[in-house]
Amino acid sequence: MTDLPKAVHIHEEGPREGFQIEPGPISTADKLELIHALAETGLHHIQVCSFVNPRLVPGWADAEAVCAGLRPVPGVDYTALWFNENGLNRALAFSEKLAMSGSISLAASEAFTRKNLNRGHQENLDAMRKQTAVHLRNGIAVTRVGVMAAFGCNYQGDISAGQVVQTVADGMAIAAEQGCTIERISLADTMGWATPIRIERGVAAVRERWPEIAVGLHLHDTRGLAVANAATALRLGVTQFDSTVGGLGGCPFAGQKGAAGNICTEELVLLCEEMGISTGVDLDRLIEVGRMAERIVGHMLPSELIRAGSLDAFRKRAA
Amino acid sequence: MTDLPKAVHIHEEGPREGFQIEPGPISTADKLELIHALAETGLHHIQVCSFVNPRLVPGWADAEAVCAGLRPVPGVDYTALWFNENGLNRALAFSEKLAMSGSISLAASEAFTRKNLNRGHQENLDAMRKQTAVHLRNGIAVTRVGVMAAFGCNYQGDISAGQVVQTVADGMAIAAEQGCTIERISLADTMGWATPIRIERGVAAVRERWPEIAVGLHLHDTRGLAVANAATALRLGVTQFDSTVGGLGGCPFAGQKGAAGNICTEELVLLCEEMGISTGVDLDRLIEVGRMAERIVGHMLPSELIRAGSLDAFRKRAA
Repeated sequence: MTDLPKAVHIHEEGPREGFQIEPGPISTADKLELIHALAETGLHHIQVCSFVNPRLVPGWADAEAVCAGLRPVPGVDYTALWFNENGLNRALAFSEKLAMSGSISLAASEAFTRKNLNRGHQENLDAMRKQTAVHLRNGIAVTRVGVMAAFGCNYQGDISAGQVVQTVADGMAIAAEQGCTIERISLADTMGWATPIRIERGVAAVRERWPEIAVGLHLHDTRGLAVANAATALRLGVTQFDSTVGGLGGCPFAGQKGAAGNICTEELVLLCEEMGISTGVDLDRLIEVGRMAERIVGHMLPSELIRAGSLDAFRKRAA
Repeated sequence: MTDLPKAVHIHEEGPREGFQIEPGPISTADKLELIHALAETGLHHIQVCSFVNPRLVPGWADAEAVCAGLRPVPGVDYTALWFNENGLNRALAFSEKLAMSGSISLAASEAFTRKNLNRGHQENLDAMRKQTAVHLRNGIAVTRVGVMAAFGCNYQGDISAGQVVQTVADGMAIAAEQGCTIERISLADTMGWATPIRIERGVAAVRERWPEIAVGLHLHDTRGLAVANAATALRLGVTQFDSTVGGLGGCPFAGQKGAAGNICTEELVLLCEEMGISTGVDLDRLIEVGRMAERIVGHMLPSELIRAGSLDAFRKRAA
């Protein structure tokens, strides 16, 4: 483990992932309280809402109200999620508060694309071509290629590293056509199929083909392997992770009712900091925010660490 | 990950760890139902009870009744735990059903030894010397040196690899004095301090000093890092793990109320099998036993996998 990175970037997605899936209702004030508390922990990137159809995702019907109430802290990037031009336009209304950039979002599984978007991979490429153009027309840079179902799929089964590379290549081709500079390739374990060995194969294949582009991971803890996957990725030069405080979120896909959410931010921070990798995060403060997240959603979250507490607290007591 | 082992041995400790800590009361019949179901999953080693003081550990007041009701399945080793001559004598009454062997059990933390046993390390060595002699006098081989708090301690803080090696050496000296052949060194992350890097350092130091002796790990998931620690250990040649179905158990130590239990057997099996490492276990059957364990204890267990289900189920559906 001599080749561990010195620092990692954490993109906190707890508010967006969590409040989209919780049965709620959760008040706008509670959402803002969590976001504001997260911004005091040392996290530099927080995804605060999703501009989606409120009939399909009632938990984000108040996306505008959350952005309106947001009090940005200098040095923190607040991001939002959108899937189409309508969503982009809603986000643009808050462009003075939000860090705006676009993604070319694909899936390595054709079956997943059909189930999730009701269209095939080729049609999805056309849609992403159009969406990229819309972003550029609005002055929003498209800097990221994202691949969902990069390590396996509930509808298609195993996904090879070759399929991941081909999917990334399809996204890079769109970027090249439109003159976009891709800064990050994000591989998502959307349905919790990743293992350390699949992370090694997928990440290695992508890094070999695009050595100059940073690779990020979006991990779900559906089967308890997320932290093991992150630990493996750290040794492969992955320096960007999406995660959620308390392990907020879940898996909205077939057969996964009650499944765990994303990798838990506190556990990711503990993993990194205890191995000498800087996250910039005050872990004890973040643990308190994890406990706040439990109070807001009104049930236990998957995080073990918010129950056990950090090691530093014990170190201080032992000293 | 080319040096992964072909197979690992799993020592299922769910009944012993779980029923000692659950507030219960849990009936002897329920305990036996769980043990019998575990024996049908392909697990080869199951720790069924603890012969401890029933006033201190009321959950194991029925250890004799469990052993009396046990219907052994050929090919499965049933083990029990004891800490003194009285416990050994109680276990010996069931020696036709139990796989009997002794341990030299120490802790790498002097502060933990004092808190846990109310004696220092040197006194504990004397006690282990006597206990080893008692085992040998009763015809029970002493084959294992165990080190608790091997990766950190709530009372002492960080533990170095050197402290672990010294503690193992102290145990090996007792074994040598009394002519015991130690077959396994077991390192326990008793209070959930391990990280992949501490596992690497501790295991490497022990393997370097005693290359011919198998190393096993007893991992707790107190802070969510147990599976990451196991994944790291697999690459270091560790081929024996203690674990608990559903993640039964917990941490009985200071400041850890509500803390998670041991590494979850289902998640360990998934990790291994999905990386081509044989466990002998039928995962779908084990997941059903995890769900049974939840019904028996009457609350959610930490296992994510018993909610999400195995990947094979999805593979079959996708095919």
